[in-house]
Amino acid sequence: MNVQITVRDAGPPHAASRPAIADGDIHPSPKSAKELYPFLEARWQRHLETYGLLTRQGFASGAAYPKGQPDACRRDAYPPSGGRPGSDLAFMRAQHLDPNHVVLGVLNPLRGGQGLLNADFAAAYSTAVNDWQVAEWTAREPRLKASVVVPYEDGAAAAAEIDRRAGDRNFVQVLLLSRTAEPLGQRRYWPIYEAAVRANLPVGVHAFGYGGYPVTGSGWPSFYIEEMVGHAQCSQSQLTSLVIEGVFERFPTLKVVLIEAGFAWLPALAWRLDKIWRRLRDETPHLRRLPSEYIRDHVWLTTQPMEEPEPRRHLLDTIAWIGWDRLLFATDYPHWDFDDPARALPLPITDVQRQKLFRENAQAVYGVA
Amino acid sequence: MNVQITVRDAGPPHAASRPAIADGDIHPSPKSAKELYPFLEARWQRHLETYGLLTRQGFASGAAYPKGQPDACRRDAYPPSGGRPGSDLAFMRAQHLDPNHVVLGVLNPLRGGQGLLNADFAAAYSTAVNDWQVAEWTAREPRLKASVVVPYEDGAAAAAEIDRRAGDRNFVQVLLLSRTAEPLGQRRYWPIYEAAVRANLPVGVHAFGYGGYPVTGSGWPSFYIEEMVGHAQCSQSQLTSLVIEGVFERFPTLKVVLIEAGFAWLPALAWRLDKIWRRLRDETPHLRRLPSEYIRDHVWLTTQPMEEPEPRRHLLDTIAWIGWDRLLFATDYPHWDFDDPARALPLPITDVQRQKLFRENAQAVYGVA
Repeated sequence: MNVQITVRDAGPPHAASRPAIADGDIHPSPKSAKELYPFLEARWQRHLETYGLLTRQGFASGAAYPKGQPDACRRDAYPPSGGRPGSDLAFMRAQHLDPNHVVLGVLNPLRGGQGLLNADFAAAYSTAVNDWQVAEWTAREPRLKASVVVPYEDGAAAAAEIDRRAGDRNFVQVLLLSRTAEPLGQRRYWPIYEAAVRANLPVGVHAFGYGGYPVTGSGWPSFYIEEMVGHAQCSQSQLTSLVIEGVFERFPTLKVVLIEAGFAWLPALAWRLDKIWRRLRDETPHLRRLPSEYIRDHVWLTTQPMEEPEPRRHLLDTIAWIGWDRLLFATDYPHWDFDDPARALPLPITDVQRQKLFRENAQAVYGVA
Repeated sequence: MNVQITVRDAGPPHAASRPAIADGDIHPSPKSAKELYPFLEARWQRHLETYGLLTRQGFASGAAYPKGQPDACRRDAYPPSGGRPGSDLAFMRAQHLDPNHVVLGVLNPLRGGQGLLNADFAAAYSTAVNDWQVAEWTAREPRLKASVVVPYEDGAAAAAEIDRRAGDRNFVQVLLLSRTAEPLGQRRYWPIYEAAVRANLPVGVHAFGYGGYPVTGSGWPSFYIEEMVGHAQCSQSQLTSLVIEGVFERFPTLKVVLIEAGFAWLPALAWRLDKIWRRLRDETPHLRRLPSEYIRDHVWLTTQPMEEPEPRRHLLDTIAWIGWDRLLFATDYPHWDFDDPARALPLPITDVQRQKLFRENAQAVYGVA
């Protein structure tokens, strides 16, 4: 059976002999939309069938992904049971969690209702996705932890959903996307940060979204490659907004994890922020520290897609500036641009550095032993 | 007289004893709009008075700048003769060119008609600004060289203006801005690159512009600091577009100079481009080399605003990756965020590196001895 061959290829039979890792970015899918129905009122089931998942960027269909990778997924990630990649827990265990010795996997559902234009539907759908994550995933597999999906364009509804999950250890973060209607530092999103701090949950900001704006500051690009590269510029803008609006001054215990936008751009962004802020700081009297200081205290980043510069030592310099305690390894399983933990970061690093980056940093920021 | 004190403060009396420098970014202004009238048909003079300089972002007024720095300028840069900073050649000589020993200064007019919505007016105004640069500046001061301002949203009209200036050694580059209606790699702009190559002129892309889109991929930011930081993200997107669309494959002798968007972000962008392109290259069969290879062969950057990281040695690593032959010192005179050549880059670098960065690279890319 093909599946078993794939699994054997992915690692030795006794995978526990490999180092234990945390995976900061796993994408679960329902087998079909109907898998969410037990968690959706009949009214919203009918709405979904009649109107679909309508966002500012059209229907939330995953159509931004290259068609050659259906559902943006590895072609070997289709479960033998049928359904979409990432929809079968047993297969996820066999293909990823077991052979890669994942001891903590953070679930980040991307089509969770976040960008739906109908505010009530967005809230109901987000709640359903969260209930579904517990029922189908975290209650059955203690290595997996869920993210609280929120209808983030509606700050009050998003805060209510966070409050609903507060104290529930199935959840380890609040999940936002990076393509929002306005920059994430703005006041409409502050109820989310307030609720996240109250629930003692970090806020993850994953690339992609439904803001309706082109990813560049100069209109719509032609190529999928430009969209992919553009996630890094988008996350730079979002982090700038969080810092300059004073979110970290107002919420001094807030933790933000930037997911799937790379990390090598962070030092240059911080240098530029510091230089410009020093000259224009009277525009932002609500800030009392250098932008880079807020970043160092409040921001974590996942590694995937891991930059691979030549010469490689530049990557070590970059990580040294960011801090070895700030990067979380992530695979993006089951998506096509999966970073293999056995191959990522082929560099001479110490055992302590490797353990932090591949496991301990995630356990620390998510509060999971 | 205050003015003379300012001039003396800027350098020793025998400024020629300081190292000769090239300044890749000087902004000249007309004393008033009427200074352009000798170069504008009466029809367009009336149009200007009746309709103003209308762009996708409202009237081109410089209003995006902080009001505390009127015209975005150093407060000591107002000429004693009256008029705007950058409008008096004698004062520019006394305040900047002489004391800083500038042997080559590149003029980049920012309100040159580039983003005007009326296409005929944009073309006529650009032509007028180019005629004015020669009459008022370069014909009177051989250290100064002009940029060919073009109505870049109209590729054919822009190419015609470049053809008109081809072979005229008053001009050393074609000037675009970075906030365009569509990403600069797209076909509508290719006539500009074709004409620039024909005229053997590099294409400069200066921060700012009138594209009408928010500078972030997620809507309009609240603070001027975010706009300033955003120029770097905008230039990252523009460079991505130029590479991925195949502009450098189609125009193998094209040179691009990115102006006033910093430079420290370039390595991380190139790493990300290379990583993603390796995986998705079948989307762009028109590309035959790694994105970073096109960048290394075709792209120069000005230094201002110079990043100032801690620890400083990271800046040397960054420049080493980019190449010591690729950065052009620039002051942005007379704008408020002027980088002083006596204070920029306070780092231990060799005399050869210093000469390249502060003078020789500009002389080479602009073909001026």
